Amino acid sequence: MRHDAVSMADAHGMYDVDRWTDGAAVRAADSVAEEVPVALVYNGFSHAVMMATPQDLEDFALGFSLSEGIAGNAREILDIEVVEHAHGTEVQMQLAGERFAQLRARRRAMTGRTGCGICGVESLDQLACRPIAKVGATGMLDAGALQRAQAELQSRQHLFDLTGAVHAAAWCGFDGRVELVREDVGRHNALDKLIGAIAAQHRSFNDGFLFMTSRASYEIVQKSAAVGIAVVAAVSAPTGMAVRVAQAAGLTLIGFARGERHSVYSHPERVH
Amino acid sequence: MRHDAVSMADAHGMYDVDRWTDGAAVRAADSVAEEVPVALVYNGFSHAVMMATPQDLEDFALGFSLSEGIAGNAREILDIEVVEHAHGTEVQMQLAGERFAQLRARRRAMTGRTGCGICGVESLDQLACRPIAKVGATGMLDAGALQRAQAELQSRQHLFDLTGAVHAAAWCGFDGRVELVREDVGRHNALDKLIGAIAAQHRSFNDGFLFMTSRASYEIVQKSAAVGIAVVAAVSAPTGMAVRVAQAAGLTLIGFARGERHSVYSHPERVH
Repeated sequence: MRHDAVSMADAHGMYDVDRWTDGAAVRAADSVAEEVPVALVYNGFSHAVMMATPQDLEDFALGFSLSEGIAGNAREILDIEVVEHAHGTEVQMQLAGERFAQLRARRRAMTGRTGCGICGVESLDQLACRPIAKVGATGMLDAGALQRAQAELQSRQHLFDLTGAVHAAAWCGFDGRVELVREDVGRHNALDKLIGAIAAQHRSFNDGFLFMTSRASYEIVQKSAAVGIAVVAAVSAPTGMAVRVAQAAGLTLIGFARGERHSVYSHPERVH
Repeated sequence: MRHDAVSMADAHGMYDVDRWTDGAAVRAADSVAEEVPVALVYNGFSHAVMMATPQDLEDFALGFSLSEGIAGNAREILDIEVVEHAHGTEVQMQLAGERFAQLRARRRAMTGRTGCGICGVESLDQLACRPIAKVGATGMLDAGALQRAQAELQSRQHLFDLTGAVHAAAWCGFDGRVELVREDVGRHNALDKLIGAIAAQHRSFNDGFLFMTSRASYEIVQKSAAVGIAVVAAVSAPTGMAVRVAQAAGLTLIGFARGERHSVYSHPERVH
């Protein structure tokens, strides 16, 4: 059900470029990260199309299903199959019957086009009803582990090394060891791929922490809280809404994690 | 109708943080960029909710309307009003009658929840029907102008200076002068704000070029082509789909624009 080996051949392509340096151009071939339309299909019904980097798409589909609350756990996704089409890729999933009925009811309750920034939300009223998941107890993180994770991750961003264009989401033990890495042009896709990989390997979401090579936006915190990740660290800045959601969810949010520096924006009791 | 003065007070907030350096923490106040739910409402109907940084929201709403083909030009948006609610912000627009009828028809043709990555697309079939806009003739860009624009932009990223968390979209003359800058947590929002500002000031979309402080994703190229921007430069990498859409649209796409270096990924005939 999972691709551990990264399918690098599909994830990037070679393009002819004019490379300019100091006013002079050289024709060259450049490695560029791909993003393709990926349709997420449940029991034959197309639910959403996401632009994603075409590797680890089974992880992606499973992670999206969990972080968006479509499935409650990995066992409710009975089957995942990646099917290529002329205009993009479909991930066809079999969702357990009761969950599928809930999904259809959710869809019927929505009319027409929905929000881009917030999955499935069309008006502010709908947003206000969304509960924020509460994360549970977890281990403690120290600065040394955060530094070890950063250093180890640098040698494992394979697609970034080729293209300079993708974000990584890494699952790290509280000792700083990097357990799993997933990459994508979209940071929330990288996280969904990682969440799917964690679930597929039957790992626990509360025996480690998430490290993102991006900013910490609202979606990153919301998706993490939805599956029970309690500690999120990001290389770059958080947004105000990410901090507020992290506070409400009981999640420890760390920003600007760079070498020996980092800032803790919420629930600092897990950092020592 | 427009906010030229940046509403900095709403665009960021102060949060208490533990700032760690070399294993020791100091309690401090940190300036964090905001993202809030912004509902785009046409003639009383909520169309989409986007997470956006709450400044220049009239520019944002106008630019979104143009880049998503909801309005054909700025005159078809008869009125724009920003209204604060408890759970977010609404931008209430009056859309010309015929355009509004088209929008309602488009919405009726869609069922339930739609894609997050590609606005309004729910299945791969819908995506394949989307025409790519063709951009027209425009001026020539030289390396000196690209460098001047980068240097000038650095002193005009006011919200980034405060927060380290936002992207800028800049409209630059072919001489490299920065004419307009808009910032947002989301790069496509920064571009929509810029597109709205250009339209509101009755500037032409083909007498300059777009400079983005981000990667060049599919949406950036698609939105640019939709309004007729012919030259797009980005600080970071493009994606494969961005390159392919740029090629098809006749748009010149420049990536990795950093100091004296840049790479031209499509239609190099406009770069000399």
